[in-house]
Amino acid sequence: MENSAKNKKSNIVLALDFPYGNRNELLIKAIKILDETHEFLCAVKINRQLALPLGLFNGLKKILRLAKDYGLPAIMDCKINDVGHTNETIAKYYFEVGFDAVTANPFVGWKEGLKPVFEIAHKNSKGVILLVYMSHKGANEGYGQMVKAPEAEGLVSQYQIFARKAVEWNADGAVVGATYSKKIAEIKKIVKDKVPIYSPGIGIQGGKIEEAVKAGANFLIVGRTITLAKNPAKTAKEVRDTVNSILGDTL
Amino acid sequence: MENSAKNKKSNIVLALDFPYGNRNELLIKAIKILDETHEFLCAVKINRQLALPLGLFNGLKKILRLAKDYGLPAIMDCKINDVGHTNETIAKYYFEVGFDAVTANPFVGWKEGLKPVFEIAHKNSKGVILLVYMSHKGANEGYGQMVKAPEAEGLVSQYQIFARKAVEWNADGAVVGATYSKKIAEIKKIVKDKVPIYSPGIGIQGGKIEEAVKAGANFLIVGRTITLAKNPAKTAKEVRDTVNSILGDTL
Repeated sequence: MENSAKNKKSNIVLALDFPYGNRNELLIKAIKILDETHEFLCAVKINRQLALPLGLFNGLKKILRLAKDYGLPAIMDCKINDVGHTNETIAKYYFEVGFDAVTANPFVGWKEGLKPVFEIAHKNSKGVILLVYMSHKGANEGYGQMVKAPEAEGLVSQYQIFARKAVEWNADGAVVGATYSKKIAEIKKIVKDKVPIYSPGIGIQGGKIEEAVKAGANFLIVGRTITLAKNPAKTAKEVRDTVNSILGDTL
Repeated sequence: MENSAKNKKSNIVLALDFPYGNRNELLIKAIKILDETHEFLCAVKINRQLALPLGLFNGLKKILRLAKDYGLPAIMDCKINDVGHTNETIAKYYFEVGFDAVTANPFVGWKEGLKPVFEIAHKNSKGVILLVYMSHKGANEGYGQMVKAPEAEGLVSQYQIFARKAVEWNADGAVVGATYSKKIAEIKKIVKDKVPIYSPGIGIQGGKIEEAVKAGANFLIVGRTITLAKNPAKTAKEVRDTVNSILGDTL
């Protein structure tokens, strides 16, 4: 991912999200957006808005091939949170079809939980990106709750526990909503440069690019702001340029 | 679901789970198991072990049609845990293809989280089944952690919070691992008869049928114990009979 960002001079991950709709049109739309915007991106993220209607080994395969042709790594945002043997099987199918990384929810735990996912991923030079704080309003209920500190006195926030797990489990990324830039800064202090921060939620969900990047986001995940734009290429270029101008020489 | 259990005189939900394998063989295997065991079941549960390789609107559609022919409601065990607009789209596709219920993780919260899923489900007479305590070893990390009680002093366990949410949100089921029968009893005290308990993990994962049912499980979710059995029909009948003999007249 870091190499792709350097080569492409972009820290923008395009989330290829579309509203519920006509399944035949979705593939055409997705390919069109990718064709128009690929030069402004460092990666592409797919969620089930696209995976379910297209089918993993059907339409989605074509999109993954196109992403590869454009030199873009592909992240499956499947938010894995099942028992180990199921998680492992899910990850295997996603990797088999061509994804370079999967997202997972650390809430599920390690033993018979995410351990098999990390093992199968790292054995195959694939990545696991953990959810640390999500971008929606209800995120405070779970990610924001105060939890009895493991092996210590007192309380600690759930997202701090998750950030520590991201370091401990050798995660390849941590997702922190751009809508909560203060949390990005807090989490950055824990993960430092060991785990890059991926930040979704700018634009339609209300997150501000500058705040998120200055707080420590390494990659911006941008979805409907680009996919629903009148001119997706222009919007993608603008977002990319905004991020680059904030990062300046550190890019 | 209650009607189906009465009609079929069975409280067994078959989890059509198979190990990672040849995609062409999976559809044949799944149909064969369903043909052989349907008379001993009250419902069928599909997870991504089958949904990913077969494709939602491809192979999986055939299995859902077969389940319908056998009068079995179908649950998609997708463990929804994303932001609201994604969750809603996921649920819509699963309902469109013919599922009667989806599973969801209450950790994601209500606002811009699971609210849209409950709305779209109940508007269409579909169900939402919440994860309250899972069956794997790592479940204690998240589901078992102690959390600062919302709007009160002191600590409360995560699964108690989830059980209360299941009642409050009007959930159509609560998943509690059969591997933790004491937790089933604790959760039953909270959900009472308002939310039926679905219990996975008997057999291969170590849960005991009798303990789970006596603790308050309403439905047993049985997967690999049946799907990997030498004689799936015989095993399904045995499990069904065991449960029925424990339930006796209360069936």
